[in-house]
Amino acid sequence: MTNNTTFETLNPPQRMLMGPGPINAYPRVHQALSSSLIGQYDPVMTGYMNQVQQLYRGVFQTQNQQTMLVDGTARSGIEAVLVSILQPGDKVLIPVIGRFGHLLCEIAQRVGAKVKTIDIEWGEVCPPEAIEKAIKEFQPKLLATVQGDTSTTMNQPLKQMGEICQRYDVLFYCDATASVAGNHLKTDEWHLDAVSVGLQKCLGGPSGSAPITLSDRCAEVINRRKHIEAGIRADHHVAGDEAMIQSNYFDLAMVMGYWGPERLNHHTEATSMLYAARECARLFLEEGADQVVARHKIAGDAMASGLRAMGLELFGNPQFKMNNVVGVYIPQGIDGEKIRLELLHRFGIEIGTSFGPLHGKIWRIGTMGFNARQECVLTTLAALESILIKHKAKIIAGQAVVAAMGHYSQ
Amino acid sequence: MTNNTTFETLNPPQRMLMGPGPINAYPRVHQALSSSLIGQYDPVMTGYMNQVQQLYRGVFQTQNQQTMLVDGTARSGIEAVLVSILQPGDKVLIPVIGRFGHLLCEIAQRVGAKVKTIDIEWGEVCPPEAIEKAIKEFQPKLLATVQGDTSTTMNQPLKQMGEICQRYDVLFYCDATASVAGNHLKTDEWHLDAVSVGLQKCLGGPSGSAPITLSDRCAEVINRRKHIEAGIRADHHVAGDEAMIQSNYFDLAMVMGYWGPERLNHHTEATSMLYAARECARLFLEEGADQVVARHKIAGDAMASGLRAMGLELFGNPQFKMNNVVGVYIPQGIDGEKIRLELLHRFGIEIGTSFGPLHGKIWRIGTMGFNARQECVLTTLAALESILIKHKAKIIAGQAVVAAMGHYSQ
Repeated sequence: MTNNTTFETLNPPQRMLMGPGPINAYPRVHQALSSSLIGQYDPVMTGYMNQVQQLYRGVFQTQNQQTMLVDGTARSGIEAVLVSILQPGDKVLIPVIGRFGHLLCEIAQRVGAKVKTIDIEWGEVCPPEAIEKAIKEFQPKLLATVQGDTSTTMNQPLKQMGEICQRYDVLFYCDATASVAGNHLKTDEWHLDAVSVGLQKCLGGPSGSAPITLSDRCAEVINRRKHIEAGIRADHHVAGDEAMIQSNYFDLAMVMGYWGPERLNHHTEATSMLYAARECARLFLEEGADQVVARHKIAGDAMASGLRAMGLELFGNPQFKMNNVVGVYIPQGIDGEKIRLELLHRFGIEIGTSFGPLHGKIWRIGTMGFNARQECVLTTLAALESILIKHKAKIIAGQAVVAAMGHYSQ
Repeated sequence: MTNNTTFETLNPPQRMLMGPGPINAYPRVHQALSSSLIGQYDPVMTGYMNQVQQLYRGVFQTQNQQTMLVDGTARSGIEAVLVSILQPGDKVLIPVIGRFGHLLCEIAQRVGAKVKTIDIEWGEVCPPEAIEKAIKEFQPKLLATVQGDTSTTMNQPLKQMGEICQRYDVLFYCDATASVAGNHLKTDEWHLDAVSVGLQKCLGGPSGSAPITLSDRCAEVINRRKHIEAGIRADHHVAGDEAMIQSNYFDLAMVMGYWGPERLNHHTEATSMLYAARECARLFLEEGADQVVARHKIAGDAMASGLRAMGLELFGNPQFKMNNVVGVYIPQGIDGEKIRLELLHRFGIEIGTSFGPLHGKIWRIGTMGFNARQECVLTTLAALESILIKHKAKIIAGQAVVAAMGHYSQ
């Protein structure tokens, strides 16, 4: 038998999470998380589920009936959308602007889809002309892209892509986990057929719930693959015409049945995470979509100005930078990990490292959700400057915080 | 644009959840859920991940290194195990004793496995002789079973099955979501190679996290399918010999890499749910495995005695009844749903309905986790009796609560 030590009572340190996410949750989300549980078919619970659908229509800026949660991290929402839409052999076009583009490819390949990529240098975005050309040649069923790819801090413009997809009758999916609430996301206006997000970035909640929305035509494509489990079928055995979705958990036809009026049993909804998701959306809508994005823009601009004022160089094309995260080159001769750890241990501030080709070259500093606030920006800049000076980095002292303050009226 | 109403502050009613799950969480789990978030590679966070692994070794009664959480509901744990072990064409033997046996079949079929079932009448369990015979004939790679199937309230004995699997060199997987902590579960002693559970039954937490454990030989089978994503590969590109797992999210080779010392980036761990899972395990181990199971046995026996004393008939073979849930026939001439709703609205008590062949015929009453307490048993019996009398059901009045009290010394 294992030694049954039970460790001490949970007591996580207070951190200021200024990386690419996860970040600190809004205090009200913590309150929601600890609310009492109720049964999954309690009328109050199904009422909350309906509210969550309506709230996320507001977040996604859509009228889509099919707006709901997938019970897992943001990545689970991506896989649910791709495995439900794509049948083996289906063609999908994916512009790869960073790590999460690779992730979309990988998931689509595992589904058995034929993947064509448009490979963009890290730090840039994909031009619409490249999309149109590739669609003409490849004739995909689906265009799948990431909006904000935190690995490069770039924000892919979607409006023209949506128009192109409309014109060529291609389904259009976007993962907006890292960008939602920090940058504009207009599902209906931009002709998006499917969008998935997570809570742990600018929505200010914990990782573990993936809100998604599906257009009617997308839901129809998925419902042609509908299938109801043996063991819960009674009289209503429904089977679609097309190949069964190769995942049960991510079968969005069944998930729609669970969230819809028929309330067909599927998983047991993760109640505490649904409470959190509900509160994230309420906070977003109370503040207002435009105001939330504007707050992220100011915080992101202030952070970028501060870093530049320190004499540091920013990564990527500034024209397409996400509002909520900035990549900054680690100064020459400085051990990036040492600085990160010292920031964490001395100030309780976490900033991010990087993946793949940028590993060891840049830090990523986020200003997201609850932390898209002046005090977080200023404190992080002051702390980073002090640690860099202590490590004898060649930076400009005393200008960063003042530069950032310039973005706020007081 | 959608009407941006944001609804009222979350304020779920106080319910006593006496169905087949989800149930009320332990108060300490609510506290854990609302704790501050920290970064996913914060040394405190990776420390908590290591603790969770050790704590669940205690819960599963195993020495398995590979013991971790899948970020999703209990069902996600089942799919992760099956899709990671089974390649298309692999043979899996599944005894079906209820709804969740059908679920295992359905998931395995979607994975592309060849499924052979042993179909058992609802209310009974599968005898070991039937397993041995089928293994000889079918020569499966995997035997997959459910321990406690709440749809029938039966608890499948596993010890002899494990011995048979050892003898014929078959991998042995069990979903113990509904039975863990309410009934004995001895992973190593019973030669289980993989077990998955959820928090929302006798472990006393919310749905949304799926602890799993894998034996070394099972981890080896899965690791032969290992593959690392493009975009996070640096120098260490590892690829196994065998077919890639057809899900990225449920690729347990990658999930093991995330929980292991290499900390290979996969999903962003659902921190709040990890906090909850940690607290569930601490409560279990502090009380002690044998004591927790004994508490569920007393509560279940007391509930069953009370129902019988009311003159009601219980469902299924009593020899194999799960400790933590009982099926009881709805008395003739009584509308089961009306009674359930009245219990909910007048007493705030939820009991369960049923699936498939038992739909409309039995209620399922659970005594799980925080609610495996005398006061919950007695209150539920008293409430049910009153409502049944009000509806003029032919029952014996005044005996149920006293009969249940007889199981407790005071």
